[in-house]
Amino acid sequence: MKLIKTPTKGMNDYLPAEVELREYVKSVIIAEYSAAGFRRIETPAVEHIENLTGKNGGENEKLIFKIMKRGEKLAEAGANDAELCDSGLRYDLTVPLSRYYANNSAKLPAPFLAMQIGNVWRADRPQKGRFRQFTQCDIDILGDATHTAEITLISATAGVLRKLGFDNFTVRINDRRLLKLSAEMCGFAPEDHDKVFIILDKMDKIGLDGVKDELIEEGFNAESVEKYIALYEGVETVTAENFAAGIGEQAQKVAAEIRSIMECAAAATVGGCKLRFDPTLVRGMSYYTGTIFEIQMDGYGYSVGGGGRYDEMLGKFTGQNIPACGFSLGFERIVGALEDSGFKVPAPHKSIAFFVEKDIDNESMQKMLSDANNLRAQGERVLVTTKMKNVFFQKTRLEEDGYTEFAVYGNHTVKTI
Amino acid sequence: MKLIKTPTKGMNDYLPAEVELREYVKSVIIAEYSAAGFRRIETPAVEHIENLTGKNGGENEKLIFKIMKRGEKLAEAGANDAELCDSGLRYDLTVPLSRYYANNSAKLPAPFLAMQIGNVWRADRPQKGRFRQFTQCDIDILGDATHTAEITLISATAGVLRKLGFDNFTVRINDRRLLKLSAEMCGFAPEDHDKVFIILDKMDKIGLDGVKDELIEEGFNAESVEKYIALYEGVETVTAENFAAGIGEQAQKVAAEIRSIMECAAAATVGGCKLRFDPTLVRGMSYYTGTIFEIQMDGYGYSVGGGGRYDEMLGKFTGQNIPACGFSLGFERIVGALEDSGFKVPAPHKSIAFFVEKDIDNESMQKMLSDANNLRAQGERVLVTTKMKNVFFQKTRLEEDGYTEFAVYGNHTVKTI
Repeated sequence: MKLIKTPTKGMNDYLPAEVELREYVKSVIIAEYSAAGFRRIETPAVEHIENLTGKNGGENEKLIFKIMKRGEKLAEAGANDAELCDSGLRYDLTVPLSRYYANNSAKLPAPFLAMQIGNVWRADRPQKGRFRQFTQCDIDILGDATHTAEITLISATAGVLRKLGFDNFTVRINDRRLLKLSAEMCGFAPEDHDKVFIILDKMDKIGLDGVKDELIEEGFNAESVEKYIALYEGVETVTAENFAAGIGEQAQKVAAEIRSIMECAAAATVGGCKLRFDPTLVRGMSYYTGTIFEIQMDGYGYSVGGGGRYDEMLGKFTGQNIPACGFSLGFERIVGALEDSGFKVPAPHKSIAFFVEKDIDNESMQKMLSDANNLRAQGERVLVTTKMKNVFFQKTRLEEDGYTEFAVYGNHTVKTI
Repeated sequence: MKLIKTPTKGMNDYLPAEVELREYVKSVIIAEYSAAGFRRIETPAVEHIENLTGKNGGENEKLIFKIMKRGEKLAEAGANDAELCDSGLRYDLTVPLSRYYANNSAKLPAPFLAMQIGNVWRADRPQKGRFRQFTQCDIDILGDATHTAEITLISATAGVLRKLGFDNFTVRINDRRLLKLSAEMCGFAPEDHDKVFIILDKMDKIGLDGVKDELIEEGFNAESVEKYIALYEGVETVTAENFAAGIGEQAQKVAAEIRSIMECAAAATVGGCKLRFDPTLVRGMSYYTGTIFEIQMDGYGYSVGGGGRYDEMLGKFTGQNIPACGFSLGFERIVGALEDSGFKVPAPHKSIAFFVEKDIDNESMQKMLSDANNLRAQGERVLVTTKMKNVFFQKTRLEEDGYTEFAVYGNHTVKTI
């Protein structure tokens, strides 16, 4: 039986040049985050199914790749779907981080600045720019309730984008508490808030009128809806403090915090960083408790990163709430934007190829290998490869990969070509 | 409900210092292999179940983490175990590489020198040094039928170990054809060869007498067994050519090839490399067709790497055989040996921590952030973190992580501590 050549649905094979670009981006991310004191951790790709379905993953919990229990003929024994599965592939790095911190916090400094670069899996419908296996680059600060966390996360992440040559991005910022206070003021019941926010989140797609229609359709009180819609009129350029003015004292306190975060994060980003208060920013995950943010890149319809404060999630593992705040970069989206910009990874080496005749004798072979090592010791890349029938085709193909010098080694002969 | 803190069975959380050591080892591997012209590729962690169970994984096929089909209540609908599963986690990098090459060879040079660093998963019984998620570092040369492939693979891999500071290792080498020719000469039927080799493979554990007993127990012809055992007497120091002398002309041809590979690989390894012909080396996977090798490190009971030639595997994907040869390093075993040797990753930066008072004003905060950036621009690592109640405990903990300078930032005050 012939085997299947293509990768599994929605997942990718990466060619060498693609891997090299991905690794270049990773190296910039790691260098920037390391300089700010973030340290890498690693968790397994496989997580307990209980942790993955603990209501911390929102919609992503529907997209889990579930792993079957091993060793028994379970289905034949009449097990149901839930009994068949004991683990799954992680769909994000936040749930594993929370578990990790609960498991290892005694060995870590407090506050702890964590960096994670790892694959996650979601059985989403594949589409352009959305894959079933993709890489997330997360930084999180655990154990810090102050805004130093938000400022560090935003400026470090904006710093990565700057270092990669991007200047066409804006960090949108809002606060879950502000969302709640405005919904509350308009008379929406707390249990309806998430439903209201999901509709508000569509504003950039359906406009304010669309939001109004959907809220009415959903059966919410007309007066509440009117009041709510009035709040979000003309907010494209509103400041946090002006927006909060009509909501109350608590909201104004939150707004002052947002302003302070924005000022400091902009000042702390090398090369600068555009930030915009956006009262319609929601973020999908209901575990956020405070500041939320998202990076918009001009010309792209999706965000390239996002995050926020989630002060109550770690308590689900530890029994004790620990303040936490994180920022996640969509790695493939950054790599894609870099590709779109025509960026090429700088070739660091001089690259030389030695073509070896098939009948080369042992002595000439060893001489050639020694030549190769001498050049490598000088920092050059030296490919030793068998000379094929059409060596000029071989040479042309290697020129595409950055090779500039070529020699053919035979029995006691060397010929540059 | 409290969630589960520990990682899934047999898998690991890695602490920052552990990740840093792992990343250091990876960087050495990548630098060495890249200098020899190997290029990185990436395949998904998830593979088609058909490819994983295509008899290329040997015993590993029993250890697959199987992934359930998505979207339907399959077990409830009465599906059996096979129908429930459409994919699984890869248990090695060789099967995915073969699929990858079949899928992408038109875009790759020929011969192609591939480098892969990636996680694999096996539902093995966890034990010391054996994990259910672990990292493999593979290099493979596809499309080269000559020994340039073997020589390049062995010298590059030995070069990695040398670069990491190891000199206590030996590459054992043998050839599947030699194994087959000796079994054939003793009268074992071809269909029994694998069974005979599995027993021979235990020689270092049960000795030659043990091998003899097991072969007899298995019911093999006594005369064949006698002849076979005689062949392997006193082979600890035998040369390939002396071993082959009693087997026949074909074996002598293979032995000459082994000698040539050994001479050239030793010469081609910077710092040198011990190689030993070992006619009892078998390697588990039945897909090997020629040279096989394994790295033994003094003081360790397991090999730290191994590989060989598998000229017929790619044909299962492409319908056409393509010569192939690979070498796989057991990453965790190398990292473990390095830890045992007391190795510490060199701290590249001067590391400074700024402790920020919780009530710091905006202006002082911005001044502090600017100070941090100026130091980072000079290549220093600067951690900005909130000052906790017990700042001296905080300082002591950070000293363990390599921080040597500390300052407390308050409102218009800076104090080194």
